[in-house]
Amino acid sequence: MAAVSSSVASPSLRLSHTASNRRSLRRGVALRSPSLASDFRLSVHVGESVRRGLRVSANSAQVMEQPRREVGPKVSTVVDVDLGNRSYPIYIGSGLLEEHDLLQRHVHGKRVLVVTNTTVAPLYLDKVVTALTSGNSGVSVESVILPDGEKYKEMGTLMKVFDKAIESRFDRRCTFVALGGGVIGDMCGFAAAAFLRGVNFIQIPTTLMAQVDSSVGGKTGINHPLGKNLIGAFYQPQCVLIDTDTLNTLPERELASGVAEVIKYGLIRDAEFFEWQEKNMQALLARDPSALAYAIKHSCENKAEVVSLDEKESGLRATLNLGHTFGHAIETGLGYGEWLHGEAVAAGMVMAVDLSYRLGWIDDSLVKRVLTILQQARLPTAPPDSITVEMFKSTMAVDKKVADGLLRLILLKGPLGNCVFTGDYDRKALDETLQSFCKS
Amino acid sequence: MAAVSSSVASPSLRLSHTASNRRSLRRGVALRSPSLASDFRLSVHVGESVRRGLRVSANSAQVMEQPRREVGPKVSTVVDVDLGNRSYPIYIGSGLLEEHDLLQRHVHGKRVLVVTNTTVAPLYLDKVVTALTSGNSGVSVESVILPDGEKYKEMGTLMKVFDKAIESRFDRRCTFVALGGGVIGDMCGFAAAAFLRGVNFIQIPTTLMAQVDSSVGGKTGINHPLGKNLIGAFYQPQCVLIDTDTLNTLPERELASGVAEVIKYGLIRDAEFFEWQEKNMQALLARDPSALAYAIKHSCENKAEVVSLDEKESGLRATLNLGHTFGHAIETGLGYGEWLHGEAVAAGMVMAVDLSYRLGWIDDSLVKRVLTILQQARLPTAPPDSITVEMFKSTMAVDKKVADGLLRLILLKGPLGNCVFTGDYDRKALDETLQSFCKS
Repeated sequence: MAAVSSSVASPSLRLSHTASNRRSLRRGVALRSPSLASDFRLSVHVGESVRRGLRVSANSAQVMEQPRREVGPKVSTVVDVDLGNRSYPIYIGSGLLEEHDLLQRHVHGKRVLVVTNTTVAPLYLDKVVTALTSGNSGVSVESVILPDGEKYKEMGTLMKVFDKAIESRFDRRCTFVALGGGVIGDMCGFAAAAFLRGVNFIQIPTTLMAQVDSSVGGKTGINHPLGKNLIGAFYQPQCVLIDTDTLNTLPERELASGVAEVIKYGLIRDAEFFEWQEKNMQALLARDPSALAYAIKHSCENKAEVVSLDEKESGLRATLNLGHTFGHAIETGLGYGEWLHGEAVAAGMVMAVDLSYRLGWIDDSLVKRVLTILQQARLPTAPPDSITVEMFKSTMAVDKKVADGLLRLILLKGPLGNCVFTGDYDRKALDETLQSFCKS
Repeated sequence: MAAVSSSVASPSLRLSHTASNRRSLRRGVALRSPSLASDFRLSVHVGESVRRGLRVSANSAQVMEQPRREVGPKVSTVVDVDLGNRSYPIYIGSGLLEEHDLLQRHVHGKRVLVVTNTTVAPLYLDKVVTALTSGNSGVSVESVILPDGEKYKEMGTLMKVFDKAIESRFDRRCTFVALGGGVIGDMCGFAAAAFLRGVNFIQIPTTLMAQVDSSVGGKTGINHPLGKNLIGAFYQPQCVLIDTDTLNTLPERELASGVAEVIKYGLIRDAEFFEWQEKNMQALLARDPSALAYAIKHSCENKAEVVSLDEKESGLRATLNLGHTFGHAIETGLGYGEWLHGEAVAAGMVMAVDLSYRLGWIDDSLVKRVLTILQQARLPTAPPDSITVEMFKSTMAVDKKVADGLLRLILLKGPLGNCVFTGDYDRKALDETLQSFCKS
């Protein structure tokens, strides 16, 4: 346990936004600069952080269990997810997988299981194993390499993770590491939640989708043939480590899929972020490192704030699912993996926006802006022809947001950046939206 | 939702032991009478309860979410499991399945899924459906009837519960009811924990084993071919409803299996309860209602106290596993279901006691008392011949109480009623115990 015991002796400092600064940043009231280059840099030192409204704090609540060391110069920023004794940091920056100490301080016990897939393993598995073991001979690492794709996010594949952990005789003092996109994160997280009734885990998301959305907030789980994410747990990681360099190997379609969730944050709660996206979409798609880091940071801040306020999705958190109810129906109807999650969400957002407009809740100018930005991002703006009204209805009937038989939806209402989560809408308008987007 | 809305209007009173009274009762300092008949009666009225050291309290902490009504005269006693906002009552008494209101007040939403098995369904399913729906037309009940036996406590069977809930289009506002023994309770509880990332559930245990142990404390899960309970969750029910009449249909072997866990509480923390058992074992085996109710109540009190102090098994809770590490090895070695859980635990306790004696931690008089009481209860006092030293060692290596490779055991130390949970014992003594109980 070299990693753990040596970290005990280290000072426990970390950079974090204060909640109020985060809100200020989000609203752009005081601290945020509209220009990309000056607003975000890949190397923020402590002094500079303080100047920019970040604070350096002794993290007293977590010192006992999990000491932290000073964050080195390569970590651009840390976004905190505030959940009492289950709080954790999201590290965002370039080259973080080479910052071995950053990962090692969050490992519990001597045994680590890296869960990854056939696409990501050749690219980053060796790097992660080195990060875990370098200068840390007390730790041994096993890995399980799953097939790649949403269609493998099911019980049979999940069992392979349990098999590996049990055959390797892992005990409760171990750590699971999710290395990959959203599917890997969701499955590894659920496996960590259920193995021996709960072991520690770390998220290393390697897709934009996972970095801006699925790795943050503790939703884990698998699909059922009748619907997405129907079996799972709320289970928080020890940390999320986002090395923005991993996006260099991401296919274009996957990149665009992640952008869909970035756009979502703007629409539901952050008008200024949406406006920034309208100006910087080309830079994002061209993988401008500053643009990507800016988008990831602001997405994580939005998500962390929502999750901190409503971890178990009593209400507010559901707003993060704008377009997802329609989108899940597309994914389920096509069979998992035909369309990427973000592609289905993009079409779903257009449908939610269409319904919001039919209900008279938003202006047509907003409808146009949504269509335009999604087209700029090369994302679909309508469901595929094969999805029928009936397919939408039957999948939507088993959506997790159904309560006592009533389907609640996230819809836009008012100016850009405002939404509602409600079951109180005209069903005829929903029917009209479905009819207008489906061939049959 | 007739049940829920009508209960909102009701007074929220319940009987409960205060924590200090519970401790007094357990220690027998002030309130406990040694005679069976006068100490426990099947009908305790409010006035009498107060006289006996029970209190009637407005349950302020839970009023907002889940109001309770006055407990009727048929409820002999209520044991509280104190876990902050996840606290819940254990109702113990004769004829509780006819007290429809008692069950209905804990149902959330309009949909209920009863999970039971082929043995219990013909006996009690209709009764439970009636209890759920009587005078409560807003609630609809589905049921899933699983095959009976420990060998079905696995992922394939668990999936049938998810299939049923999803095919029936259950949403988050629903309640799962576990009707059966420990296997049903563990599986239904884990299904409730994972379905849509968590729905409400109620335990109606129908075996003595489940009533005195497995239904209380929120441990849920399934087995893996390589070990017991390796996949699961800590997930607390809304209430545990113990109708002692259900024991009238329990086979003798099952009854004795439950008695093993009753004996365990005496050994690890309640000398006076053990002494009561030594005097009343014949009454227990003859299903004397007062003796059974006394044993269930005192077992639940012991378990509730331990779970309240250590829900996630950081240390103290592990002591409830006296004999279980050896016992699990027997169950895994024989194949699940050959021996009943309590039978394996009984043999396991003898082995733990043997090891404690070899270490010089207990007197030989205690060894004899343990053997005598287990023989009185017609429980095994040694593992079956087919289990080898190697089988013990390989199963014990994947026990959940292994930490960083070190197997910790619960062993008796000092006078009756005292135990330790420790990895600090002589391995040679463990080898000697294994050698002396195994043919090969």
